[in-house]
Amino acid sequence: MTTDSLSMTLAALADPTRRAILARLSRGEASVTELAEPFAMSFPAVSKHLKVLERAGLVARGRDAQFRPRRLQPEPLREIDKWLESYRALWDARFDRLETYLQVLQKGDPDGSHN
Amino acid sequence: MTTDSLSMTLAALADPTRRAILARLSRGEASVTELAEPFAMSFPAVSKHLKVLERAGLVARGRDAQFRPRRLQPEPLREIDKWLESYRALWDARFDRLETYLQVLQKGDPDGSHN
Repeated sequence: MTTDSLSMTLAALADPTRRAILARLSRGEASVTELAEPFAMSFPAVSKHLKVLERAGLVARGRDAQFRPRRLQPEPLREIDKWLESYRALWDARFDRLETYLQVLQKGDPDGSHN
Repeated sequence: MTTDSLSMTLAALADPTRRAILARLSRGEASVTELAEPFAMSFPAVSKHLKVLERAGLVARGRDAQFRPRRLQPEPLREIDKWLESYRALWDARFDRLETYLQVLQKGDPDGSHN
């Protein structure tokens, strides 16, 4: 439905099996057979997940023509990281307010730490 | 289909309209009518998007009983940030390798900066 790259990346990651495949690939290249093993999944089922990850640009095929190993391409994840940036400021601000509040509490009750 | 909280958050964000709604709410509470305005969308269409965001815990309803303003809850975004952490190390490593490579190039060609 949505075809912008950030939406495609987020949709591709919205599945625990696909995130597990990425985690495996973050430790090095792997063939589809190797990727299927830990999930007790069929070859077609893993291939389907890989296709979604490939379309999002998160996984690419290695050079070996026979084993066609897959490798992780982290670039689309940076796009998410960049998108998160403005919200990071938001939750940092929340944390700062909490810290200020705690400092006010401590000043208002100097013996608080001894209770 | 998937019901783990991280998958629900990622799926909720995999839509440009829903991300735009969040961006609007990051500047402060807004009623459904106010949220619908910039998108030229019907009230039910916006309500549907809000429901997805609410289920993911990204949006909550404010206290005002009449206007039922919506507000952003950034906590689920921290979960994505935490998930990204291990991959961040991966792309930082890529950048470090590139930097080392550039340093090697500069050493091999000390006058490179004067060209």
